[in-house]
Amino acid sequence: MQINHSKQIFSGKVVKLAVHEIRLPDGNLAVRELIEHPGAVAVVALDSQQNVMLVRQFRIGANRELYEIPAGLLEAGETPEACARRELREEIGYEPGRLESLGGFFPAAGYTTEYIHLYFTRDLIYSPLAQDRDEFIEVVRLPLPEAVRLIEQGEIVDSKTIIGLLKVVHQLGLRI
Amino acid sequence: MQINHSKQIFSGKVVKLAVHEIRLPDGNLAVRELIEHPGAVAVVALDSQQNVMLVRQFRIGANRELYEIPAGLLEAGETPEACARRELREEIGYEPGRLESLGGFFPAAGYTTEYIHLYFTRDLIYSPLAQDRDEFIEVVRLPLPEAVRLIEQGEIVDSKTIIGLLKVVHQLGLRI
Repeated sequence: MQINHSKQIFSGKVVKLAVHEIRLPDGNLAVRELIEHPGAVAVVALDSQQNVMLVRQFRIGANRELYEIPAGLLEAGETPEACARRELREEIGYEPGRLESLGGFFPAAGYTTEYIHLYFTRDLIYSPLAQDRDEFIEVVRLPLPEAVRLIEQGEIVDSKTIIGLLKVVHQLGLRI
Repeated sequence: MQINHSKQIFSGKVVKLAVHEIRLPDGNLAVRELIEHPGAVAVVALDSQQNVMLVRQFRIGANRELYEIPAGLLEAGETPEACARRELREEIGYEPGRLESLGGFFPAAGYTTEYIHLYFTRDLIYSPLAQDRDEFIEVVRLPLPEAVRLIEQGEIVDSKTIIGLLKVVHQLGLRI
């Protein structure tokens, strides 16, 4: 797709916004509003009893508290794996040993460049880091089958959390 | 969470952007950049041979073509179910009979209000509507197990498509 003209609208702490005029396959022009986002990493972490480590926090887009797997924004120059290790220590106080990739996804490819890298670990060592100054997070441990029931019941409604948990259930061949 | 001050930055064709200053639980102030989005609907549609109907189109956020389940934006005053029926006719040319809810999700609740309603149908009647003037969509039918393999292989990377397909596989109790 050919970009004909771009206008930068806003550059903020997390997101940038631009409006692009693109040339469609039929030659006509169309407008696309696009968020530029640094990308993120999220981790499905199971403890030795097959509990999944979730965090609960207020999210302004949902206007309420959500259950989520630990996650955070990629910092400049940081690899996704380094980000996964840092965020787990900050958000749940554990450092992962072996991290396995679960791939990744675009949450909303129609209007944001955000890509979320997903990891899985069953190998946790207690090693806390200070939380971000403006994050207020409660850590919740739930048996994996109970977390899957919360997806079915519509209590877990966050994209990375649904995808991460269902990929792990699928990959582990769990019959839930 | 209490909003202390809000500044509207942009109002576009699909998204609006505002910057909110919020009061954190510890009394400090923090900034949140928030996209206001009309919400969307997406549908997992299986034909009588258990093929899933996918669409392939260029997505500016991914900067490439993606496989997706049929989906579209909610119009003003439109119910999610009416939107599902309209979008299926526009994008794949079929009208669904019975539609079953698969719940919904927030793709990126940290910075966008978008909520995607998910539906499932196995009941398709040929009944095309004209496509949107600025959409260029190729329809692809794939056996459901092959679509799941494309998720595992990282060829399907769109949030609503991964969530819709894995929820259907899980709900139908398919062993793939």
